[in-house]
Amino acid sequence: MEKIEHIGIAVKDLKQANETYGKLLGVQPYKTEIVNAENVITSFFKIGESKVELLESTNPLGVVAKFLDKKGEGLHHVAYSVKNIYDEMKRLKTEGFVLLNDEPKYGADNKLVCFIHPKDTNGVLIELCQEII
Amino acid sequence: MEKIEHIGIAVKDLKQANETYGKLLGVQPYKTEIVNAENVITSFFKIGESKVELLESTNPLGVVAKFLDKKGEGLHHVAYSVKNIYDEMKRLKTEGFVLLNDEPKYGADNKLVCFIHPKDTNGVLIELCQEII
Repeated sequence: MEKIEHIGIAVKDLKQANETYGKLLGVQPYKTEIVNAENVITSFFKIGESKVELLESTNPLGVVAKFLDKKGEGLHHVAYSVKNIYDEMKRLKTEGFVLLNDEPKYGADNKLVCFIHPKDTNGVLIELCQEII
Repeated sequence: MEKIEHIGIAVKDLKQANETYGKLLGVQPYKTEIVNAENVITSFFKIGESKVELLESTNPLGVVAKFLDKKGEGLHHVAYSVKNIYDEMKRLKTEGFVLLNDEPKYGADNKLVCFIHPKDTNGVLIELCQEII
């Protein structure tokens, strides 16, 4: 793992959250993106070498909608940058972690991603990210 | 805000969590520290310019014990580095955020810290950190 690529925060209202995080972080989002595969609309704020990703659900049956129903707004996942996602997935599988997808899939912000089941990581949903060059 | 200083994860068993995060991140914790004021024992892993902090409660009435009772293990807070914590506290107060301490206090890993109430930040407990030089 090279760095924290981003932290993902589930929010009910992206417009309100963009205003709040704009004030908090002192910067504006550099991108808003709809990720159909994950049923979310997201915005990204740059902060040092990492990002803050805000996620609003676009579908009441999506994962973020379910998270909001169960836990309310708050920290949803942590994403780490990896150089080679295939190697890292193999390494973590060997270490006994349960991967939520067998093959990398396309994620927001031009990335190949894979999620790790939170039961293996003390309740934290983890995303591996490799930049698509 | 300069960077994500660390993410804090509430865990039940620091020894077990250290092993898990050692495997996950591919590094060992560089420090273990008891923070009496917060009723926690913590360990820190370096990852890029940021850190992962694992927190085990040392007191059943402490904030982390209460968090674990209510929500279980998982992401507890996000800490951002600031150059001047007094200036940043003043700025955020003016912006309408509710600070959980009026004066900076001593936190783990040689820092002056201040927490922001999660009701103002979409359910995320936020810590401001200034390195003590």
